[in-house]
Amino acid sequence: MLKYNVEVKQLMLNPKQYADKECVVSGWARTIRDQKAFAFIALQDGSYQQPLQLVVNRENVANYDELVHQGTGTAYTARGKIVLTPNAKQPLEMQVKEIVLVGDCPSDFPLQPKRHTVEYLRTIPHLRMRTNLLQAVFRVRSEAAFAIHEFFHSRDFLYIHTPLITTNDAEGAGEMFQVTSLDLNNLPLNEAGKVDYTQDFFNKKTYLTVTGQLHAEAFAQCFKNVYTFGPTFRAENSNTTRHAAEFWMIEPEISFADIEDAMNLAEDMLKHIIKRVLERCPSEMQMFNQFVDKGLLERLEHVANSNFARITYTEAIDLLKKADKKFKYAVDWGCDIQTEHERYLSEEVFKSPVFVTDYPADIKAFYMRQNEDGKTVAAFDCLVPGVGEIVGGSQREERLERLEQAYLNKDLNVADYAWYNDLRRFGSTPHAGYGLGFERILMYLTGVSNIRDVELFPRTAGNAMY
Amino acid sequence: MLKYNVEVKQLMLNPKQYADKECVVSGWARTIRDQKAFAFIALQDGSYQQPLQLVVNRENVANYDELVHQGTGTAYTARGKIVLTPNAKQPLEMQVKEIVLVGDCPSDFPLQPKRHTVEYLRTIPHLRMRTNLLQAVFRVRSEAAFAIHEFFHSRDFLYIHTPLITTNDAEGAGEMFQVTSLDLNNLPLNEAGKVDYTQDFFNKKTYLTVTGQLHAEAFAQCFKNVYTFGPTFRAENSNTTRHAAEFWMIEPEISFADIEDAMNLAEDMLKHIIKRVLERCPSEMQMFNQFVDKGLLERLEHVANSNFARITYTEAIDLLKKADKKFKYAVDWGCDIQTEHERYLSEEVFKSPVFVTDYPADIKAFYMRQNEDGKTVAAFDCLVPGVGEIVGGSQREERLERLEQAYLNKDLNVADYAWYNDLRRFGSTPHAGYGLGFERILMYLTGVSNIRDVELFPRTAGNAMY
Repeated sequence: MLKYNVEVKQLMLNPKQYADKECVVSGWARTIRDQKAFAFIALQDGSYQQPLQLVVNRENVANYDELVHQGTGTAYTARGKIVLTPNAKQPLEMQVKEIVLVGDCPSDFPLQPKRHTVEYLRTIPHLRMRTNLLQAVFRVRSEAAFAIHEFFHSRDFLYIHTPLITTNDAEGAGEMFQVTSLDLNNLPLNEAGKVDYTQDFFNKKTYLTVTGQLHAEAFAQCFKNVYTFGPTFRAENSNTTRHAAEFWMIEPEISFADIEDAMNLAEDMLKHIIKRVLERCPSEMQMFNQFVDKGLLERLEHVANSNFARITYTEAIDLLKKADKKFKYAVDWGCDIQTEHERYLSEEVFKSPVFVTDYPADIKAFYMRQNEDGKTVAAFDCLVPGVGEIVGGSQREERLERLEQAYLNKDLNVADYAWYNDLRRFGSTPHAGYGLGFERILMYLTGVSNIRDVELFPRTAGNAMY
Repeated sequence: MLKYNVEVKQLMLNPKQYADKECVVSGWARTIRDQKAFAFIALQDGSYQQPLQLVVNRENVANYDELVHQGTGTAYTARGKIVLTPNAKQPLEMQVKEIVLVGDCPSDFPLQPKRHTVEYLRTIPHLRMRTNLLQAVFRVRSEAAFAIHEFFHSRDFLYIHTPLITTNDAEGAGEMFQVTSLDLNNLPLNEAGKVDYTQDFFNKKTYLTVTGQLHAEAFAQCFKNVYTFGPTFRAENSNTTRHAAEFWMIEPEISFADIEDAMNLAEDMLKHIIKRVLERCPSEMQMFNQFVDKGLLERLEHVANSNFARITYTEAIDLLKKADKKFKYAVDWGCDIQTEHERYLSEEVFKSPVFVTDYPADIKAFYMRQNEDGKTVAAFDCLVPGVGEIVGGSQREERLERLEQAYLNKDLNVADYAWYNDLRRFGSTPHAGYGLGFERILMYLTGVSNIRDVELFPRTAGNAMY
């Protein structure tokens, strides 16, 4: 089999290095134009946004007609000379000497070269990555993921894999998926006539995790700086553009550290991700800027180079009350800050990302550190222009007696947290952390407005294909 | 709060750079020895295998007695001068000028400085990482994970997140966990009296994935080279040292590629992981070599620098039949190769890793490419000394008609694979891939013999803590 020895990306980024050299490429035809004596095949191999033009001369290849009378999506391998094309849009093309039809593509291929709606593309998640838009999304997704590992590795954070199957309801919020090996049409019952979970796989009731935080805290109490990057689940029956039932989260946890340290870390991390993606995916980012979100590049470059603002929740409520703007939801101290408020603060007041800190204890989770005012906790959200909340974090309550009070206030089952309490009993330290929804940052980086279009095979209420 | 500004690892690896400098460190006491005028605190901060010795002089600190009469596990932050100790085991120590007791640790702390069995440690997964053994395991785990991302990123592979919740039974082997948001004590029934899954969260029956391969193939048919690194699940009721219900897998998938390309990739990847871990975790690896597995370092260095052997299944069966050794399981062409056989081949015949290829179709999965002999498929397993099978892969069947025949042979429901067939209908290419169990490679790297001791919070039949 004729094997490719270079990727389209390498050619496009280093035209001079490959000029007049013979190469072999493999990929799929985006378009094929036969002009009798010549045919032009625009070949994509998944490495680069723009296709490589193959120029096939009828005189140079046997069975020319069979080779070029093929549909969009056909797989080819081609050997030929790279020729610079200084007057064309692309820096170079290939003058083909040999071309092999690897896999044909009949005319019922759903991705003919025309505009498809994102809604239609969602019905074919196994093929839609072959479009320009989704291809760019998934390349940015891959580079952003690597940038995250790179960031934490360079700071000596321990990368940990917290469990997906759990017995803990960490947020105390319910809406967890249950995991079972029982036959639902033939459930074992106990004496009370209820499902007998002692016969389930783990001998008890288990769920899919909603956060790795509690488990990460155990590791931070030994390794100081740790992070998770893994899937998370919510059985939340909401049909929005920002929620999915399965998504990936990054959750760093740092010991001997306070809320300021966690905010500094979040700011540095977001800037690192933005810079790396701008650096490594320039042609993809240009495409998003041109076709998806006109102000994207300017906004990202601004964020990468500005200091994030920091205000307290109390200050934020004051600003919102004074705002010369009509909100759908009224604001009052003690209420949740809605997306419209978040966007007003970051887009209109600060025109930059902003950390809002010190939220009322009543609207935040039990594990957040109680401030001395007796009303607020050392929580923070990072709000960014165009998206709203992108990071949520807090200093954790490291004082056992305060934590035990919080279980009572939040009506939680204290017995479930005995192990978590141990972390406060044995060498407890001030510590903090946050969660970043990976798909949220991808929406922010690409301008794509629906979470379904930055996930590979989206799982949302009523929808799980394959 | 006094904040640390250096990690123990930095000090230990760069003694000259820090000699006579003032630093601040934070961590937990492994041991505290009070000698009246002086106390010695061995402090670990999770960054390095060996602790840093703090020398606390009674004359230098107020409330000396309170500070040093504390238990193992106490959290401290200390400021002091780094002093080189050329005659001691460790290259340096800290002469303490100021020390803060951050969190105390009462005497019921379960990890007193004595030998604990791994079985006991498994009962306290939220604390056991504070022991020398588990700390080393989790540092190697983190570095190995990063090495894997680094390897694939440097080769321009797309990192993809295939879904965890799936409707596909990819291996056709059953033993999948079911995922549901239904109330098991109040199940909706359909007209036939069976569970009505149209009322479940996704309007159908869903499972936890056993492999990302099929979904990864869809991406490889656009991006050529992709890999997954994510959690995988098996509801297999087996109680062995090598199986867990939740584990992480690395699954690369490459297009325009055959079985040889996949084996070359696996060999390069394994060598890269080994080299990086030896480089980045020297003190941990020394510890494993000394206390867990005497021949470890020699074996790993040998493997990193040798060419892996390659033989066919048929040749392997011949070798096993001729072997001057009594096996528990008889060998015959067509049977599975057992762990004892795998180890004999890699440890005694080849004394190196060995790829076994071209297995009988009957004992392998439906998606593997059928060889021309009509009996075997282009599958491979990589067997390594000390562990047995560590990687399993194959060239995939890219020919639609052959694949459809395989569904029938394996008694699979053809309708479930319509989307997978599309990958063969539209621009199909020869492609291949493999799966590497992350915990298996960790066992191989550390010499640790039970998978429960390389997972953070192990999930096995009857056991899921927290």
